[in-house]
Amino acid sequence: MNTKKLNDLKNWMQDNQVDLAYVSDPGHIAYFAGFESDPHERVLALFVPLDTEPFLFTPALEVEAAKNSSWTYDVFGYLDSENPWKLIADLLTKRLNGAPKKIAIEKGQLIVERYDFLKNYFPQADLSSDITPLIQKLQVIKTQSEIETLIEAGSWADVAFETGFKAVKEGATEQEIIAELEYELKKHGVSEMSFGTLVLAGDNAANPHGTPGVNVVKKNKFVLFDLGVMWKGYASDATRTISFHEPREFDKKIYDIVLEAQLAAQNFVKPGVTAAQIDKVARDVIENAGYGEYFNHRLGHGIGTTCHEFPSLVEGNDLLIEEGMCFSIEPGIYIPGKVGVRIEDCVYVTKDGCKPFTTTTKELQILK
Amino acid sequence: MNTKKLNDLKNWMQDNQVDLAYVSDPGHIAYFAGFESDPHERVLALFVPLDTEPFLFTPALEVEAAKNSSWTYDVFGYLDSENPWKLIADLLTKRLNGAPKKIAIEKGQLIVERYDFLKNYFPQADLSSDITPLIQKLQVIKTQSEIETLIEAGSWADVAFETGFKAVKEGATEQEIIAELEYELKKHGVSEMSFGTLVLAGDNAANPHGTPGVNVVKKNKFVLFDLGVMWKGYASDATRTISFHEPREFDKKIYDIVLEAQLAAQNFVKPGVTAAQIDKVARDVIENAGYGEYFNHRLGHGIGTTCHEFPSLVEGNDLLIEEGMCFSIEPGIYIPGKVGVRIEDCVYVTKDGCKPFTTTTKELQILK
Repeated sequence: MNTKKLNDLKNWMQDNQVDLAYVSDPGHIAYFAGFESDPHERVLALFVPLDTEPFLFTPALEVEAAKNSSWTYDVFGYLDSENPWKLIADLLTKRLNGAPKKIAIEKGQLIVERYDFLKNYFPQADLSSDITPLIQKLQVIKTQSEIETLIEAGSWADVAFETGFKAVKEGATEQEIIAELEYELKKHGVSEMSFGTLVLAGDNAANPHGTPGVNVVKKNKFVLFDLGVMWKGYASDATRTISFHEPREFDKKIYDIVLEAQLAAQNFVKPGVTAAQIDKVARDVIENAGYGEYFNHRLGHGIGTTCHEFPSLVEGNDLLIEEGMCFSIEPGIYIPGKVGVRIEDCVYVTKDGCKPFTTTTKELQILK
Repeated sequence: MNTKKLNDLKNWMQDNQVDLAYVSDPGHIAYFAGFESDPHERVLALFVPLDTEPFLFTPALEVEAAKNSSWTYDVFGYLDSENPWKLIADLLTKRLNGAPKKIAIEKGQLIVERYDFLKNYFPQADLSSDITPLIQKLQVIKTQSEIETLIEAGSWADVAFETGFKAVKEGATEQEIIAELEYELKKHGVSEMSFGTLVLAGDNAANPHGTPGVNVVKKNKFVLFDLGVMWKGYASDATRTISFHEPREFDKKIYDIVLEAQLAAQNFVKPGVTAAQIDKVARDVIENAGYGEYFNHRLGHGIGTTCHEFPSLVEGNDLLIEEGMCFSIEPGIYIPGKVGVRIEDCVYVTKDGCKPFTTTTKELQILK
């Protein structure tokens, strides 16, 4: 349970005259309450009234686990045969001594059906307040202890690269290489990847979100690895592109441009620059080399308890970078049918620069 | 692309005077459009106007993949630096020759923020229509070809059980067993599990949604396996509980009750009974044996393109079962600190009964 963050939430509620906050995203519930759970389609909710104690509302089969977590306030459960919204409305009315007047919701996460339930049970309540920006703001600056966990998560990505690179051999399928590297991680206690591992061989790497399958490793072609793990509730995310035997000259040229862009952006990061400026530093390198049209995504995204979070490093985002922010720097060039290269490190911002969570070399590795 | 289902959607729109349907769930987009993608926080949408051609709206970096899928209509992309909602509003206004009047949305999937965008760009439009029930209805009866794919997905779960059972030995951790069985699947081309694999040893199995970790296999204790894969876009989901060496007498008794409940429900299924009746058949067995309070979840859930979908086998659900429906039958008894047993098969309903997708024996297996 994160008492400090719960207090930050209450202070924000006070400032905004909100008498009830409804946290609906399982990741955000874990952040405030310290209870991690994937409820699938069932209802999992954290209700924080301004003037009295918060409570968790969970499926009956999660109550035991919630009580055994670091959460110290009440936990209420519901059976699959019960109407959770009826129970929630009763609990809230009792706890608040009446209906809530202004309920803050997570507009970036809450589904319309649940919003409608709230509205039906509390037709007089004002539901216009959005907690999503506050949660983004609370999460965007990481504490020292969060950074340490992110470094651990990053070092598991390094283990994955090392194992994956060893599995690269002529004729190996993308899927086989993924099996090897995930096996190594899972055997050692990593229970979850932070997203579906990408190993893309040859031309398949020219699709920035390609699907790994039965493409095989071929001599003189690139293999792109994009992967990360979940570790103690925090994500890693990193990309390396390697060459199997000597690369073709053109491919090597593309690699060098992407690497220059990645390093230029990483070296540019420090408190006081903007998110858009970092994007531009990398984009300029690629555009000046003549490949701007093939870099068709933002430079990066925040990382923390999920692998894609606030902030976005993208044109137009004038957010000022601060110490403790953590995000990816991942330029790429994807020329359909020809070659694809992406190089990515996630970094944390220090007093005067930034440091990556992953240490696998970014110099082009030529495997044989 | 599923032209028949798109026509079903258009017919429903006609009947409900809806001039635009907005499909927002990536799984449902895959179902109608044949294009599978995980957009993370980016916008992926299928817009189906009543009177003209539908189109896909995707992140720029997915456009190529969408065009290479079975989708034959237009695909529009947006860059990370663009405002997708402005582009969507322009595209829709142009295609519909004006603003839509009645937009059907997926209330069970759409987040409030996106609902608000639609409302802001089309303030006159009626957004009260919900497509979620229609999609549930379209998906609930599976075709012969869908059932064949579900059988294939089920047989991968059988492979997982076989490999997992072989990895059961004294002192093995839950995590190690998961590593072994997932490795076997991934090596053979299964790219994704349908949910986080559960292997729960001993008392940990008494938590119906326990988290696998470093608990070890011990003699005379149960190990619970709950797992499934994604295969050609369809999910499997099955649970077996095995004993490492001879079970304690009490544990064996609990196992027998759960097995009796599972088989009673499975034998009861046929067209014309209700979802609630099936739940009751299994629940009665467990209640009559005196363990009703330890079976604290519904009997089952639908399965198809996701591992938890409509319908729910639960008290109060009077849905009539029809041929072609597919769902899980998964009674369990969880006595905290003592023992946990769940046995689950997913089945498809035939003309006069049902058949399971998984064939691993449900008789108690005693491994040594």
